[in-house]
Amino acid sequence: MTTAPFSLARRLRAGETVYSGWSNLASPVVAESIAREGFPAVVIDVQHGLWDVASAFAAIAGINHAGSAPVLRVPLNDFAFVSRALDIGAEGIIAPMINTPTDASAFAAVAKFPPVGERSFGPHRAMALQGRKVPVDYLREANEGTLTFAMIETPTALANVDEIAATPGIDALFIGPYDLSTSLSAGKAQDITAPEVETAIDRIREAADKAGKIPGIFCRDAERAKAMAKRGFRFVTVGNDLGFLRESASAALKVLQG
Amino acid sequence: MTTAPFSLARRLRAGETVYSGWSNLASPVVAESIAREGFPAVVIDVQHGLWDVASAFAAIAGINHAGSAPVLRVPLNDFAFVSRALDIGAEGIIAPMINTPTDASAFAAVAKFPPVGERSFGPHRAMALQGRKVPVDYLREANEGTLTFAMIETPTALANVDEIAATPGIDALFIGPYDLSTSLSAGKAQDITAPEVETAIDRIREAADKAGKIPGIFCRDAERAKAMAKRGFRFVTVGNDLGFLRESASAALKVLQG
Amino acid sequence: MTTAPFSLARRLRAGETVYSGWSNLASPVVAESIAREGFPAVVIDVQHGLWDVASAFAAIAGINHAGSAPVLRVPLNDFAFVSRALDIGAEGIIAPMINTPTDASAFAAVAKFPPVGERSFGPHRAMALQGRKVPVDYLREANEGTLTFAMIETPTALANVDEIAATPGIDALFIGPYDLSTSLSAGKAQDITAPEVETAIDRIREAADKAGKIPGIFCRDAERAKAMAKRGFRFVTVGNDLGFLRESASAALKVLQG
Amino acid sequence: MTTAPFSLARRLRAGETVYSGWSNLASPVVAESIAREGFPAVVIDVQHGLWDVASAFAAIAGINHAGSAPVLRVPLNDFAFVSRALDIGAEGIIAPMINTPTDASAFAAVAKFPPVGERSFGPHRAMALQGRKVPVDYLREANEGTLTFAMIETPTALANVDEIAATPGIDALFIGPYDLSTSLSAGKAQDITAPEVETAIDRIREAADKAGKIPGIFCRDAERAKAMAKRGFRFVTVGNDLGFLRESASAALKVLQG
Amino acid sequence: MTTAPFSLARRLRAGETVYSGWSNLASPVVAESIAREGFPAVVIDVQHGLWDVASAFAAIAGINHAGSAPVLRVPLNDFAFVSRALDIGAEGIIAPMINTPTDASAFAAVAKFPPVGERSFGPHRAMALQGRKVPVDYLREANEGTLTFAMIETPTALANVDEIAATPGIDALFIGPYDLSTSLSAGKAQDITAPEVETAIDRIREAADKAGKIPGIFCRDAERAKAMAKRGFRFVTVGNDLGFLRESASAALKVLQG
Amino acid sequence: MTTAPFSLARRLRAGETVYSGWSNLASPVVAESIAREGFPAVVIDVQHGLWDVASAFAAIAGINHAGSAPVLRVPLNDFAFVSRALDIGAEGIIAPMINTPTDASAFAAVAKFPPVGERSFGPHRAMALQGRKVPVDYLREANEGTLTFAMIETPTALANVDEIAATPGIDALFIGPYDLSTSLSAGKAQDITAPEVETAIDRIREAADKAGKIPGIFCRDAERAKAMAKRGFRFVTVGNDLGFLRESASAALKVLQG
Ligand SMILES: [Mg+2]
Ligand SMILES: [Mg+2]
Ligand SMILES: [Mg+2]
Ligand SMILES: [Mg+2]
Ligand SMILES: [Mg+2]
Ligand SMILES: [Mg+2]
Repeated sequence: MTTAPFSLARRLRAGETVYSGWSNLASPVVAESIAREGFPAVVIDVQHGLWDVASAFAAIAGINHAGSAPVLRVPLNDFAFVSRALDIGAEGIIAPMINTPTDASAFAAVAKFPPVGERSFGPHRAMALQGRKVPVDYLREANEGTLTFAMIETPTALANVDEIAATPGIDALFIGPYDLSTSLSAGKAQDITAPEVETAIDRIREAADKAGKIPGIFCRDAERAKAMAKRGFRFVTVGNDLGFLRESASAALKVLQG
Repeated sequence: MTTAPFSLARRLRAGETVYSGWSNLASPVVAESIAREGFPAVVIDVQHGLWDVASAFAAIAGINHAGSAPVLRVPLNDFAFVSRALDIGAEGIIAPMINTPTDASAFAAVAKFPPVGERSFGPHRAMALQGRKVPVDYLREANEGTLTFAMIETPTALANVDEIAATPGIDALFIGPYDLSTSLSAGKAQDITAPEVETAIDRIREAADKAGKIPGIFCRDAERAKAMAKRGFRFVTVGNDLGFLRESASAALKVLQG
Repeated sequence: MTTAPFSLARRLRAGETVYSGWSNLASPVVAESIAREGFPAVVIDVQHGLWDVASAFAAIAGINHAGSAPVLRVPLNDFAFVSRALDIGAEGIIAPMINTPTDASAFAAVAKFPPVGERSFGPHRAMALQGRKVPVDYLREANEGTLTFAMIETPTALANVDEIAATPGIDALFIGPYDLSTSLSAGKAQDITAPEVETAIDRIREAADKAGKIPGIFCRDAERAKAMAKRGFRFVTVGNDLGFLRESASAALKVLQG
Repeated sequence: MTTAPFSLARRLRAGETVYSGWSNLASPVVAESIAREGFPAVVIDVQHGLWDVASAFAAIAGINHAGSAPVLRVPLNDFAFVSRALDIGAEGIIAPMINTPTDASAFAAVAKFPPVGERSFGPHRAMALQGRKVPVDYLREANEGTLTFAMIETPTALANVDEIAATPGIDALFIGPYDLSTSLSAGKAQDITAPEVETAIDRIREAADKAGKIPGIFCRDAERAKAMAKRGFRFVTVGNDLGFLRESASAALKVLQG
Repeated sequence: MTTAPFSLARRLRAGETVYSGWSNLASPVVAESIAREGFPAVVIDVQHGLWDVASAFAAIAGINHAGSAPVLRVPLNDFAFVSRALDIGAEGIIAPMINTPTDASAFAAVAKFPPVGERSFGPHRAMALQGRKVPVDYLREANEGTLTFAMIETPTALANVDEIAATPGIDALFIGPYDLSTSLSAGKAQDITAPEVETAIDRIREAADKAGKIPGIFCRDAERAKAMAKRGFRFVTVGNDLGFLRESASAALKVLQG
Repeated sequence: MTTAPFSLARRLRAGETVYSGWSNLASPVVAESIAREGFPAVVIDVQHGLWDVASAFAAIAGINHAGSAPVLRVPLNDFAFVSRALDIGAEGIIAPMINTPTDASAFAAVAKFPPVGERSFGPHRAMALQGRKVPVDYLREANEGTLTFAMIETPTALANVDEIAATPGIDALFIGPYDLSTSLSAGKAQDITAPEVETAIDRIREAADKAGKIPGIFCRDAERAKAMAKRGFRFVTVGNDLGFLRESASAALKVLQG
C-alpha cells in the first residue's frame, strides 16, 4: 500500500469523485483505521473535534501510511495552522467560515507559495512522508498538488460565493450544511433539508462549477453522500468516527437486548 | 455527584455569588481535585498557565466529572479557542484584553450562535458530557447557558467599559487587577491596592451593574475574594493550584525547620 | 448519570448477566463513548491493545464518568498492574493465562487486601472517583466490591480449572476462546467453534458454577454474546472498538460503492 | 541552583536527616514545584500514584533541575523499573513489599553494578543530568552514590528484617506504616498508632541501626515527620502533593464560607 | 551548569556573536541535548517544526536546565504564543514574516510590558526556572532581558526594513534566506546565494546596524554560519536537529557500505 | 517505499548481514528518520533508552512506514512487553540478560505461538501495518517471521551459551559488550577490547554458528560494526540517535570555534 503524493489533488483535478472519511476523536490510530478500511482521504477535524497539534500531526502520518490522503480542517481563522498542516503532509486544508473574498485571499496566502500566495517554505515532514529528496521539487509541485477548500456556510458567504470561488489559490468550495441551516434559520434549526438550505447548496455548487473549482460537501451518512455525488459534488465526506463507533455499538446493544 | 449542565450560568444569572478555583499547572487531575474539594467552578488558565489543547480538553471533562463548571481563559485574541472550548464542554470563557467594543463583538461572535453571534455548530463532546441527545436542544440553550467574560485590564478598556458591557453576547466583565496595575502604572508596579486600581475596580463593577452584566474579578487569596464578594462581585476566582501547593509545602517546611 | 461504586460486582454477585464493551485503541474518549452508548462495563485491554499506563488510567476515569464500570485486562503476568489499576478505580481485573493454582494465588495476592491477599493500600484516585472520604471504608469493601477474572485459555489451565476456580480471592473465570483454539490445535487454528473448544467452554463454565464463581467469556459479536449468556455465562464481552469502527466504515463504503 | 550528583546518598551516609517531598499526581511540574519550595528530595510514587514511565522520567529531570534529589518508588516487584529509573537519574529507589532476603537480593541485583549486583550499564540520561562525560566514573561511583530503600510493611518482612537489612546492596529500610497496620490487623484497620505498629516501627529502626543501614519512614504530615526524625529516622517523607493541594483548597473554602 | 537568566540578551546587547542551535523534531530531550553539546542558545521552531505547545514548553525548561537560552519561533501571526512562550521562560522570540511596521508593532505589543507594549503579566514558570521570587523584578527586567527577532523574508519586508528596525520593542532583525529566495524568485527557486538574496542580506544587516538592533540570520551549516558572523551577523543559527541526525547517520551508512 | 512484512527474518535467515540503527531518545520521528536514512532495521531500546509504551508503539509504526524493520529491546525480564511489541508490529525482540536456559525458554514462551511457545494471539496492529486480513495467516507465519535475540552479557550466560543457543524458539544471540566488560571485570571497566571480552565475543559467535542461530552484536560506531560483520556477525547495530546528534553538533561547534 503506497502513497502517491498529491493523489487527492490529481484525482479531483481530473474530475473524479472522492468520498472521504472524517475524524473527530483525536486518535491517530482511529483516523488511520478509517483510511485503511478503504477511504481514499480522511479529514482530521481540528475545528470541532478533539484534535490538538501533536495528535493531528501524528494522524497525518498515519493516514499517509495507510495510503490515503490526509486533509485537515483548521479552527476558525487559524491561518497559521494551514501552513503548518501542509508542512507536515496534509494534502488538503478545509478552512471554515470563508465569508468574504478577503477571507479567501488570506486563506490562499498561507496555503500557496509565491507567486500565488506567501506560504513560507519548510515542508520537511511532508517531504519525508512523500519520499522526496529535492526541496525545489516540492516548491514547484505543491501549489497544484495540495488543495484549499473554502467553507461556504453563512448568508454572507453565499452572497460572496462567486468572488470567493474566483479567488486565485482557492481550489474548492466546501459546504457546511449544518451551519448553513443554523445561520439561515437565525439560530433556530439544524435542518439540512430545509428549502433555503437546498437552494443554497445548489447555488454553491453552481458557483464552483462556473469558476472551475471543485464542489465539496459534508454529509452525515453514506446515503446522503451518494446522493450528493449524483448532484455533482466531487469531494464528499461521509459520517465520522464517533458516529461509526456509536452506530455499531448501538446495533450490538439492540441485538443483546432484543 | 452529578453535573446539571449550564449550572454556572443559571446561578450567576440568578444573582448568586460563585467562588471559582483557578488552575495553571496543566494537570487535569489537579484541576479536577480543586473542583472535588468543593469549588463550584474552576478556571483552566490557558493564557498564563502551562495548558495545551489536549490537557485543557481533558481538564474540562475532569472538572465536569467532579460536578463543577469548567471555565476556560483563552490566550490573547485566540478566538478560535473560544468556540473549541465551548464545543468540548466549557461553561464559561474568559477572554483577556477586551479593550474595545470591536474586541467585545469579536469575542461574542465566536461564543454565541446566530442570531447573537456566528458560532459554528459542533458541540459533540459537550453534549456527551451533559448527557444530551438532541443537537437542537443544545443550539437553543447554549447562548443562555454558557457565559462570556470580557477582561477589563487596560486604560483603553476602562475608557470603553460601558460600551463593552453593553455589547450583545457579552455576559460578564472580569477584572485582571495585576495587568490593570501594570498598565495604570506604565509598567512600574504590581500593586493591586493602589488608589487608581481601586477606583478602576469600582468603575468596572458599576459598568457591569448598569448594563445588567455579571461583575467578576481575579483574587489571589480567599480573604480578598470574600472582600470582593462583599463589594458586589459575583464571579470571584480564588488563588490558583501552584499557590495552593506552595502554601502547604511551605507550611510543612516551616514545621520541619521549626 | 451517576456511578454507584462497585456496581459491577454487586450485579454479578447477585446473579445478573452483564454484557461488557471492549476497547483496544488506547483512546480514553473511545472507551468512554462505548460506555455512554449503554454498556454497563467496558474492558480496557492492555494485553493486546494499544493502551499504556497513562491512557488506561484516563480511560478508567472516563468510563466511570459515563456511569459504567471500568474493567482492565493486564498484560501477561503483570501483577504490579493489577494493584495499580484497582488503585485508580478499575472495578474488575482480567488476568491472562492463569494456568495453575500458583498463578491464581499470585493474582489474588495483589488484588485482595489482607487477610485474603496482600494488596498494598493506596486507592486515592479510586476513592476520588467514587466520592469516598474514609479510607477504611474502601479497605473494608474493596475485596468484595472489585472482581478478579482468571483467564482459562490453555490445556494446562483446563487441567487445573477446578483448583483455579477454588482459589480464595478468585471471583470469576474468563474464557479466551481464541487462545484456547490456538493451544488446543497446537498453533494450527483460530476456530472457536471446533468441538474441543466447545467442550472446553462447557467444562470451564461448569467449574465456575461448581465453585460458586462467575463464568465469563470473550465474544467477537453480539449474536455469539447472546448465545453465551443463554449458555450460562454472566460476564460476556461483546466485540471491540476497532471492530465497531471497521464494521460501520465498511458498511458505509459498501453503500458508496453499491 | 545546581545539583551535586548523588547528594542524597552523601548526606544520608554522613548521618544527616533528610526530609523528602512526595508526589502522586503524575505532573512533572508539580513534583518540581515541591522540590523548588525547599525539599532536598522528592519521591515519585509510581506504585500508588498516577505516574507512568514518560511522566516519571520527565519528573526526574524536573526535580534534578530544581536542585533536589529525585527518588522513585517502583510498582510491586517491578525490578526492571529499578534499573531504568537509575539510568534516567533517580538517586534513590524505594521498592515496596521487600518481605524476604530473596526479595532484597533481587532488588539489589538490579540496582547495583557488579560485583555487588548485576545492574546493566546504560545511564546516558543520568550522566547528562549530572554533567558527566566519562562512563566509567559513573560506573565507579553509582553503587555508593545511589540508594536502595527496602520497604518493610508486612509481618513476613518484620520476621526477616535483620536478614533484609544485612543484604549486600540494600542501603536503607523504609517503613510503610499504613500497609503495616493493614497487615498486622488482618485487613481491619488503617491505624498507624496502634501498639503493634508502634512496636514494629521501633523494631525496624533498630534493625537498620544494627546493620548500619539508613532507617526511613513514610509520614502523612510534618508534625509526625518531625517526631519520627527525633525517633531516629533519617529519610523521612512528608505528606504528598494531593494532600498539599487539598489542604490549601480546603482552607480557602473555609475562609470563603466562614 | 547554571543558567544566568537573560544571558542571551546580555551577550547580544554587549555586542557578542552568539551561535544558536535549532530544533524541529519536537523532542525536548533532543533540543536539550543540542544545548548540552555547547550551544549557548537553541531555537525551538514551532513555525516549521513538529512542536506543539506541551513539547515546546518542556523544551524551554530542558534548554534552560542545560544552561542555554531557549528561543522560540512562533507560527505565522501567532502573537498569543509570543506572550505564552515568554511566560514559560523563552529568552527570545522569532516572529516570521514581519512585513510592515504594523506587524512589528503588533509583535512588540505582545512581547513587551508597558509602557513599550501591552504584554500581560503571568511569568510564573519563567520565574521558577530563573529562581526568581519577586514578580516586580521580572516586570522591571524582562523588556530588556528578553529579545524580539523580527523576520525579514519578503520583498515587502525589505521595502519596510528601516521602519521595522526602528520600531520600539523590536530588538533584532532575523533573516530567513530561503523564503527570501522563494519570494524574490516568485516561487521558482531556493537559492540563497543568488545575487538578489545576497544584496538583500546586506541591506537587512545594514538596517539593523543603523537602528542599533541585532542582526541575525538562519544558516544551514557551520561554514556558512561562520561566514555570516564575519559578515557582521551576531545571532546566527546553525543547522538543525534533523540535519545533524541525518548527517551522522548518512556518514555511518557510507562507512558500512564502503 | 513499501514494507514487506517479516523482511528482517527473511534476510537474516537467508544468511545476509543486516546493519541496524539504534534509538534511545523516545522520539518516534527520530527513530523513523534513522530508518529513512537507509537502515533496514532500527532498534527501539526500551531497556536503557527513554521510551515508554506509547512512544515505542508509535515508533514501531513509524519505522514500518519508512520501509524498515522495527526491533525492540525490552527491559530486563519484562516478558509481557515481548508479546505486546510483537502484537504491535515489532519484527524482532532483543531480551537483555538471558543468562540461563530457563531465561531463554521463558523468552521463547512469550515470543512464539504454540507449539513452540505460548504466545497469546492478538496482533491486530501488526496485521494492519502489514496489510494482512486473515488472522490465521499471521498465526502460521509469525514464529518464523519474527526473531528472538537472546542477549549474552554475563559470565553465567557465557557458561550456558550453548544451551541458550540450542533453546527452541531462540533465533539469535546478541552480544552486549559493555555489560560483558563490566561483569568480566567485576565492575571495574568498560573496555570492550579487553582480551577476556574479545575471547567471549568469539565464543558466543561460535555458539550461535554451531546451533544454526544468527549471531548479533551491539557496536558504537560504523567502523567497529563493519569489523564485526567481517568477523561473522550478521545482525550488527550501529551507534545510536543521541550519538549521531552529538557527533554532528560537536563537529559544527568545532567549525564555529575553529
Ligand atoms: Mg461549520
Ligand atoms: Mg491579565
Ligand atoms: Mg488470550
Ligand atoms: Mg505500602
Ligand atoms: Mg521563513
Ligand atoms: Mg546490556
